[in-house]
Amino acid sequence: MGVLSEGLTQVLIPVAALIGLAFALLQWYLVSKVRVSGHSGGHNEYKDRLIEGEFEEGVDALEVSIKCAEIQHAISVGATSFLFTEYRYLSIFTGVFSVIIFLFLGSVKGFSAKSEPCTYNTGNICKPALANALFTTIAFLLGAITSVLSGFLGMKIATYANARTTLQARYGVGKAFITAFRSGAVMGFLLAANGLLVLWVSINLFKLYYGDDWEGLYESITGYGLGGSSMALFGRVGGGIYTKAADVGADLVGKVEKNIPEDDPRNPAVIADNVGDNVGDIAGMGSDLFGSYAESSCAALFVASISSFGVSHDYTAMSYPLIISSMGIVVCLITTLFATDIFEVKNVSDIEPSLKRQLLISTVLMTAGIATVTFFALPSEFTLFNFGTDKVVKNWHLFFCVAIGLWAGLAIGYTTEYYTSNAYSPVRDVADSCRTGAATNVIFGLALGYKSVIIPIFSIAIAIYVSFSLAAMYGVSVAALGMLSTIATGLAIDAYGPISDNAGGIAEMAGMSHEIRERTDALDAAGNTTAAIGKGFAIGSAALVSLALFGAFVSRAGIKTVDVLTPKVFIGLIVGAMLPYWFSAMTMKSVGSAALKMVEEVRRQFNTIPGLMEGTAKPDYATCVKISTDASLREMIPPGALVMLTPLIAGTFFGVETLAGVLAGSLVSGVQVAISASNTGGAWDNAKKYIEAGVSEHAKSLGPKGSDAHKAAVIGDTIGDPLKDTSGPSLNILIKLMAVESLVFAPFFATHGGIIFKWL
Amino acid sequence: MGVLSEGLTQVLIPVAALIGLAFALLQWYLVSKVRVSGHSGGHNEYKDRLIEGEFEEGVDALEVSIKCAEIQHAISVGATSFLFTEYRYLSIFTGVFSVIIFLFLGSVKGFSAKSEPCTYNTGNICKPALANALFTTIAFLLGAITSVLSGFLGMKIATYANARTTLQARYGVGKAFITAFRSGAVMGFLLAANGLLVLWVSINLFKLYYGDDWEGLYESITGYGLGGSSMALFGRVGGGIYTKAADVGADLVGKVEKNIPEDDPRNPAVIADNVGDNVGDIAGMGSDLFGSYAESSCAALFVASISSFGVSHDYTAMSYPLIISSMGIVVCLITTLFATDIFEVKNVSDIEPSLKRQLLISTVLMTAGIATVTFFALPSEFTLFNFGTDKVVKNWHLFFCVAIGLWAGLAIGYTTEYYTSNAYSPVRDVADSCRTGAATNVIFGLALGYKSVIIPIFSIAIAIYVSFSLAAMYGVSVAALGMLSTIATGLAIDAYGPISDNAGGIAEMAGMSHEIRERTDALDAAGNTTAAIGKGFAIGSAALVSLALFGAFVSRAGIKTVDVLTPKVFIGLIVGAMLPYWFSAMTMKSVGSAALKMVEEVRRQFNTIPGLMEGTAKPDYATCVKISTDASLREMIPPGALVMLTPLIAGTFFGVETLAGVLAGSLVSGVQVAISASNTGGAWDNAKKYIEAGVSEHAKSLGPKGSDAHKAAVIGDTIGDPLKDTSGPSLNILIKLMAVESLVFAPFFATHGGIIFKWL
Repeated sequence: MGVLSEGLTQVLIPVAALIGLAFALLQWYLVSKVRVSGHSGGHNEYKDRLIEGEFEEGVDALEVSIKCAEIQHAISVGATSFLFTEYRYLSIFTGVFSVIIFLFLGSVKGFSAKSEPCTYNTGNICKPALANALFTTIAFLLGAITSVLSGFLGMKIATYANARTTLQARYGVGKAFITAFRSGAVMGFLLAANGLLVLWVSINLFKLYYGDDWEGLYESITGYGLGGSSMALFGRVGGGIYTKAADVGADLVGKVEKNIPEDDPRNPAVIADNVGDNVGDIAGMGSDLFGSYAESSCAALFVASISSFGVSHDYTAMSYPLIISSMGIVVCLITTLFATDIFEVKNVSDIEPSLKRQLLISTVLMTAGIATVTFFALPSEFTLFNFGTDKVVKNWHLFFCVAIGLWAGLAIGYTTEYYTSNAYSPVRDVADSCRTGAATNVIFGLALGYKSVIIPIFSIAIAIYVSFSLAAMYGVSVAALGMLSTIATGLAIDAYGPISDNAGGIAEMAGMSHEIRERTDALDAAGNTTAAIGKGFAIGSAALVSLALFGAFVSRAGIKTVDVLTPKVFIGLIVGAMLPYWFSAMTMKSVGSAALKMVEEVRRQFNTIPGLMEGTAKPDYATCVKISTDASLREMIPPGALVMLTPLIAGTFFGVETLAGVLAGSLVSGVQVAISASNTGGAWDNAKKYIEAGVSEHAKSLGPKGSDAHKAAVIGDTIGDPLKDTSGPSLNILIKLMAVESLVFAPFFATHGGIIFKWL
Repeated sequence: MGVLSEGLTQVLIPVAALIGLAFALLQWYLVSKVRVSGHSGGHNEYKDRLIEGEFEEGVDALEVSIKCAEIQHAISVGATSFLFTEYRYLSIFTGVFSVIIFLFLGSVKGFSAKSEPCTYNTGNICKPALANALFTTIAFLLGAITSVLSGFLGMKIATYANARTTLQARYGVGKAFITAFRSGAVMGFLLAANGLLVLWVSINLFKLYYGDDWEGLYESITGYGLGGSSMALFGRVGGGIYTKAADVGADLVGKVEKNIPEDDPRNPAVIADNVGDNVGDIAGMGSDLFGSYAESSCAALFVASISSFGVSHDYTAMSYPLIISSMGIVVCLITTLFATDIFEVKNVSDIEPSLKRQLLISTVLMTAGIATVTFFALPSEFTLFNFGTDKVVKNWHLFFCVAIGLWAGLAIGYTTEYYTSNAYSPVRDVADSCRTGAATNVIFGLALGYKSVIIPIFSIAIAIYVSFSLAAMYGVSVAALGMLSTIATGLAIDAYGPISDNAGGIAEMAGMSHEIRERTDALDAAGNTTAAIGKGFAIGSAALVSLALFGAFVSRAGIKTVDVLTPKVFIGLIVGAMLPYWFSAMTMKSVGSAALKMVEEVRRQFNTIPGLMEGTAKPDYATCVKISTDASLREMIPPGALVMLTPLIAGTFFGVETLAGVLAGSLVSGVQVAISASNTGGAWDNAKKYIEAGVSEHAKSLGPKGSDAHKAAVIGDTIGDPLKDTSGPSLNILIKLMAVESLVFAPFFATHGGIIFKWL
């Protein structure tokens, strides 16, 4: 037994979660101190406040602030209304899928309510399969609700913070940065704390029924991961299509045809574009990372439950994954203070180093945190069941497993930064290739994305080798948790990006000065890089967690080996490797088609609304919002169905071996597609920003805005939009969702699966 | 024992090869009847000939013909000189690698010249490892020479036929088609017959030494495949960089900046571009398909040698793979007559159906051919050794194995045609998306490429499942052979593409009328589709043959299972899946950089040579040729090294399990990247051609040349160039080359490999 008692564990976990929640609320409070004169806000109080700051030249400050408030309101209303519509669809899906889960799992033992001998802890008696079916369904619903909540709250704070960031930009880039970053932190801490708390509460409630049957308990809890990730899938895909249809459509007419700036209020698609950032990049990403977190926790807990922890009922050791996450919240809290209170961002060039420093600090502190947790929570030695054989593991082995995941995350983050930030040569080379037009820009950008895969894959491979060798699948699952242990910080720097993007949009729409826009653009450029880093983390952790879930699935399905050199497995492998392409084809095409519709509508408005181009008439924003909404809701169904149905079809008709092949194939292929897509897109976006900003002689020689090189860069940026914000980030959900779904349905597939091969 | 006696087999195989050679020479003779007035050609005989045909309006026919001859000569000289320079580099590589093979394999038993007990046919005595090392090296050299010869001869006939096709286009599209197609057939039959003959001769010569030791004999023969594919790698990569640097560079300045037509003689890069088609698409592709053919034969022979055929010394059954290829030559001969003599191409719309018909006819006839061969050559039942267990196989099982490979090839071919021909909606949708600019064109094109992967992968998966289940790895290897059995026809329709492309170039450069150019463009558009089909076959067969080689490697390396759920295998799998991206990053970047240099040079010439734009001064073609040559030779080394060194490093340092993972990963991931890259590129090219040709109302609404939509289409076409002609087709060589190299070095890795893990 470890040093930490069960009672203390039961106190520390919820306390850490509550600290996280409190810290999130504190940050929210600090952000709320920046006042925006809303619809009901009095003009007097506003004037008082502005006296402190510097007035804008030539623009009436009061009018600007009112405009900001209006735009913020419009964005917030648009995002909320879209999410509610989306949730209506999701509730139907959730209802139907709950029934499927219950029926499939219930049928494993023919809906018998009789207790059964346990699968792993043989000799003991476990709860009936019907109970597992019921509790899995409940866990699924809980996961779905928490996931949706994570996304929704993120959107709320983001739409609350965007105009505030814009207004703070008037007082300098540092103030704007702090506002955006704090808002990101609200989301990060809310999500991390909320995820941990709901999971802890669920386990304790389920325990009331399950008692000693830990196998059944943690098997049911995996439903939580499934619920989380299936909502994330639709959130990412739907949100991604929404935001990119609007973005691409707005750019194609506005920037390319009409030669008006990005986010110009005369562009009818501009509100849809800004709403999109919040529903796609914020709400979608929140659900996604929550899903990863929920799944890696569930995978680790499930594997632990069938280890000697489960047999000897060592609750503290069993809860090791949750304790790691608790420690993560505390570490991230300290890390956040470095950005908000210790170091100060004074000018544009401080932004990226400050965000990079966050990654490094959180990783270093967390390493110490892991060592502490490992020493106190784990017995010095324990036994894992590794595909039928016993494996003795020491506690310091587990330290290495978690730590290598954590550091692999840092390596992925830094590599991503190198390939997507315009401070380094890769993006500058891409920008330089715009001299000869869009074609070379695209060729160089694609090559950059492909190349950026190398180091992350080696990092993941090393993490897998070490953790797998030291502690089998348990090692891999805690390595994933290690990578996600600093999720609050990761999300903070990630969410900071779309908030800054929105802030820039609001500055433009409110007609604020060029200087303000330059500041928000600098924030946004750093945000593109951190968004890519966030996606890197999401993908890296997805790879690890999928492998862990895959291992748990194989274990649960009762297969001993997944031999590539058997036809059943190999065909699964090659078809699985194809799925990311199929999925990407659907999502890319959806964005393309929706963007074409958007273009037509925007053109129509420019042609038929007199005075629109001159700025004397208002565009019809609502129609564009509707186009994005309709397209995203309709188009998210086929890719969603592909992901949700593939494991069911493969498992039911072809059996667990083929399904195992599908999971392995989609994992190893999807990771590459996802990383290259998101880095290519990020690089194109920043190559364009590099030319626009013109900070070096080289950049000036390519610019200014409107030059041929800049036009070529805009084309690259537009192509990158669906890659980096729709297809790429959805792929990591594809990988993990198929794995967790397979794990949840494993008892069914093991009993009734493989109809076709049985029949042959 | 089968019906066919050993003696008859020994006669039939060479006879089939000789028939193939004779048929190739006949076609060459028929092509040569079209006379081009070369440098030494008299003007009188030319005039006589022209009387038969219709004279060109406004262009002096004699002058045109002389110009054609000049241009043809320039292209031929350029291509020959490049290939000789390339071969100098390759001879160094071949020399060094021969030494490596000999040393590595010789060291397996410490360079002992003592005979050893056999590995599979236990109880018997086999030749010493040192002899295997020596003969493998010899086979490697033979394969390399044959591969180079295949590419070189293809180039020769292509540069012989291009101007002839142009001149025949004056008499109608049908005549031009026949000329181009016959020339393709020359290449197809030369290659198929030559490959078979050299292999047959080598086996018979090796037998003089090996006698009864079939294991050793066919193990050594695998060197033939390695030699073939390693030359193909450099041919594809070097040739691919050469052709696309010139093509992209020429387009970027000529079409985009100067607004002069494609292949305009004023463009300094135009000769390099046309040379490129011959060294890349013809010579590179010839080496590539020869490599596939050699490898699948070697894989099948090797697996057969360790089956009951080897034990019972059934020479005819053992030679089944060679007999299949012999039958293929005869079937393709008949098929060719359908295109050249039975059906006639009267107008543009007949071209594609005629080529498609070739695929269908050869497949149907070959199915009967396979049945015949299987019945006569194989015993009704025999035993295979399947990873340590015996598997009894019936001869009709093998019929299904070969046939399913063949039909899977047809399915891939037809799917490719659907996605890349501008007769169907996918390409038309892509063309339509050009309305809104280059960005949507690229998004739709990428989505099309991703989508086009689905059916080929399912076809390959079904072929693998059936052949694997029926006859284990032997089944897979003969399925690959089945797909390649109609290689002569496949190559004919494939080579037809670049020949037509060149013909169009020559028409433009010789200043021939618009009508001629339209005819050659129609041939070329069909050629883009058939080139994509050819690539589809190359990739599909590469997938099958790699799997067969992979199986043979695993067998030879003495591992029983390749279990994904072991850390050694899994890290190999994920790193292997990354290699196609790394490789593509290198090749794309190489093309991009070389193209930038080309652009600078072309711009320089336009700026500094007075009268160039007006057509009064000649450009300096030689400098552009030099840029392409230097770039391709320099840039082919890193990707070549990546492919050649990966198996050596993985095997030596990480051992056979990790290497097995690498092979499986690169196979399942590379196939997807290769198919999508080549179809995306083909679709963009044809979307552009669709707009240019303007044959439908829809196409007219997008055109004409120079419209915004057309400009967007040109950008897509340019991006597609390196995808479809450099990265994509090189990837299938990556897959198979790593597999055959692993197989050749398997005895070394099994004995001395895995240093790092042994040390850990």
